[in-house]
Amino acid sequence: MTTDLMPNRFRPGEAELSPRDADLIARRDAVLGASYRLQYRNPVHFERAEGMWLYDPEGRAYLDFYNNVPSLGHCHPEVNAAMAAQAGRISGNTRYLEPGLVDYAERLVATFPAEMDRVVFTCTGSESNDLALRIARHVSGAQGVIVSSHAYHGTSAACAGVSPNLGAAVRLDPATRMVTLPGPAGIPDEGAARHFEDQVRAAIADLQRRGFGVAALLFDSIFSSDGVWLDPPGFIAGGAAAVRAAGGLVISDEVQPGFGRTGDHMWGFMRHGIVPDLATLGKPMGNGFPIGAVVGRADPMAGFGATARYSNTFAGNAVGIATADAVLRVLQRDDIPGNARAMGARLRAGLETLQGSHASLRAVRHAGLFFGIDIGRDDMPAPARRALALDLVNAMREDRVLISTTGANEDTLKVRPPLIVGPEHVDQFLHSLGRALALVEGRRT
Amino acid sequence: MTTDLMPNRFRPGEAELSPRDADLIARRDAVLGASYRLQYRNPVHFERAEGMWLYDPEGRAYLDFYNNVPSLGHCHPEVNAAMAAQAGRISGNTRYLEPGLVDYAERLVATFPAEMDRVVFTCTGSESNDLALRIARHVSGAQGVIVSSHAYHGTSAACAGVSPNLGAAVRLDPATRMVTLPGPAGIPDEGAARHFEDQVRAAIADLQRRGFGVAALLFDSIFSSDGVWLDPPGFIAGGAAAVRAAGGLVISDEVQPGFGRTGDHMWGFMRHGIVPDLATLGKPMGNGFPIGAVVGRADPMAGFGATARYSNTFAGNAVGIATADAVLRVLQRDDIPGNARAMGARLRAGLETLQGSHASLRAVRHAGLFFGIDIGRDDMPAPARRALALDLVNAMREDRVLISTTGANEDTLKVRPPLIVGPEHVDQFLHSLGRALALVEGRRT
Repeated sequence: MTTDLMPNRFRPGEAELSPRDADLIARRDAVLGASYRLQYRNPVHFERAEGMWLYDPEGRAYLDFYNNVPSLGHCHPEVNAAMAAQAGRISGNTRYLEPGLVDYAERLVATFPAEMDRVVFTCTGSESNDLALRIARHVSGAQGVIVSSHAYHGTSAACAGVSPNLGAAVRLDPATRMVTLPGPAGIPDEGAARHFEDQVRAAIADLQRRGFGVAALLFDSIFSSDGVWLDPPGFIAGGAAAVRAAGGLVISDEVQPGFGRTGDHMWGFMRHGIVPDLATLGKPMGNGFPIGAVVGRADPMAGFGATARYSNTFAGNAVGIATADAVLRVLQRDDIPGNARAMGARLRAGLETLQGSHASLRAVRHAGLFFGIDIGRDDMPAPARRALALDLVNAMREDRVLISTTGANEDTLKVRPPLIVGPEHVDQFLHSLGRALALVEGRRT
Repeated sequence: MTTDLMPNRFRPGEAELSPRDADLIARRDAVLGASYRLQYRNPVHFERAEGMWLYDPEGRAYLDFYNNVPSLGHCHPEVNAAMAAQAGRISGNTRYLEPGLVDYAERLVATFPAEMDRVVFTCTGSESNDLALRIARHVSGAQGVIVSSHAYHGTSAACAGVSPNLGAAVRLDPATRMVTLPGPAGIPDEGAARHFEDQVRAAIADLQRRGFGVAALLFDSIFSSDGVWLDPPGFIAGGAAAVRAAGGLVISDEVQPGFGRTGDHMWGFMRHGIVPDLATLGKPMGNGFPIGAVVGRADPMAGFGATARYSNTFAGNAVGIATADAVLRVLQRDDIPGNARAMGARLRAGLETLQGSHASLRAVRHAGLFFGIDIGRDDMPAPARRALALDLVNAMREDRVLISTTGANEDTLKVRPPLIVGPEHVDQFLHSLGRALALVEGRRT
């Protein structure tokens, strides 16, 4: 695992900056907390955005194959109109009667399996995972949480405590247990479910032996920060059943896979043929407006809510709800998940063609429009593979196409365009990737 | 302390509901998590809002003396226009260069003492307190947090762990220590600082003896959930110095007192003549848009940010920043804190007059436009005082004036109108309170 927690970032001196950007970065460094990072060796600076495109102050267009918050495209006019109209009427809060809140809640849970019929709103994916952990620990009376080796589940203290991806400087909760995924462990598909379940059972046994007990299995079914290790579909099921048998809850972190990103399904857990106790929502829910939710079965929600007050000032207010409602309407009306499926297939086919002429494209994994593309030949050492992936990402940034890296070694390209992407954008992305490959492979040979 | 965590709430059967509202409540109960509560015996239902007023579906106007999120008034047109305009241009994120982010950050920290020159953005006050706790524990290497007896600091797991106000069913962190405030302990003003410092020193000694160490003193300088015990100004200083001497950080929770609520000062800690290490912002920062921040000294921010990644997807995005920027501009241009001071004085004078004819108004405490008004004569038992306060709040709700209760016994009226309140609204509030007092005192005698 690389010790640099964000390899694809700006480091002073590596890029030639315009005086305007150099000045802005100096002012930024003087006033923002030290935790802020800029993406890319040569940071990007945008003034406006529309659909698949971001525009810099000189009016140059950048193709967005990275941002998974504006799933419906940047600055969606219908979504923005719904937000502005509601902001002009009333913002409100959930302690007042609000028909819009109930209407949207009903339409949202209708996209889940029938058992998952309750929702609590939050403002961010982190708040969703934090609340799900509170519910799981409250109703189980236990503390232990099982996650994947390089999981990332958010920024709150409780989320950070179950996010090994944040690195050694951020303390894990003593009752966090990590399991290795079958893919990076090199387990063939037929043994994947067994491998995962064995790992989970060992974690359960250890948690019980130490008196922590098992509160939850928490997973992002795309396993994005692990490097997009999402196959074979269904490999999670046995481990999930084991956790439930041990008294823990199964929590599907849908912040990345949710709202149709995986193409075939509205929610990532559906790809694995399971029904979790809780699902946590965030990023694309408001196409940029800060809104999230926990959707789940009535039982754990009632066990928590009957005795524990949970009141979130902004969450569920009428403006957020109207915005999320517009997002869901557009997503269903325009069959956005269908487009994610079709464009995901087109992108996969194009990548497979590129693999024929570029040995650096080691492997392609995806569901719908979430892609992990491993970079570097098998015989290259890990640091060289990582350097190659970073070179590629930054070559594409110079070509005005935006992606980044992920994975334990950060040698996997993370590609996740807005879900409205069209064939012409997919083709432009493939051309740019081909050019970047030729460039960096040329440099390295 | 009452065991009902939200006494001023709807309970089925207590109010005669319209068929429309009864149907909406049934649907609401069927789809929202069990943690949701409706305010007032007879819930309120609003369709639109403007300035100081909320309007029900029949068009009846309710005077808002409770909501402290829309400090500039409901549906502020300039703020909403700024939000909508930015949403149409670009939403962005903090990993891209964004002049608006830096401009606003500079203008925000300029309202703080010079030592507090760094900011990290969040989406909610809970996220702000959660991050402040992460920073404090990271840089101190300690776990202990000292709070007031009935403190409430937010909804995340870490915030709930330092919020005794959430009641016995919500687990406190083992390293949380509570201190009683001088006011409710009956300490005269001249002994208040000594009392508070003694309590804090005892908590420090206990935390050190158990190996937890001291990470932070965390306080809301209005002590809202304790019952608005904010006098005498300065009583916090000695305790804060003791915590700093023990290696902990001083964190001022400005979610309620911040942005001019206290009238004389932009930030609540200023009233106590101290400069904290960190201040946490939320509620009124975006006049309803979900945005918060941690502002603080460079040292602890750097100690955290250098090794710990903190990346908050929505926080600091261009739409939230443009909205908060408009709020700050209006607040400064229109001298909103000055109005809070003037209207606070007018309200206080009116309450003192009412006290002459109503023995039920036991005591009035306030800073600017945050009021705690103790209800019930000294010789009444606590449950009777609480019942009287609840009757008053609900009588005023029927009179279409909105307030609620707070405090360990929930017998303190919590009054905190939007900061744009005018003399005519103050007078209407006083008339309504007088009528409600006559009504409930008549019933009880």
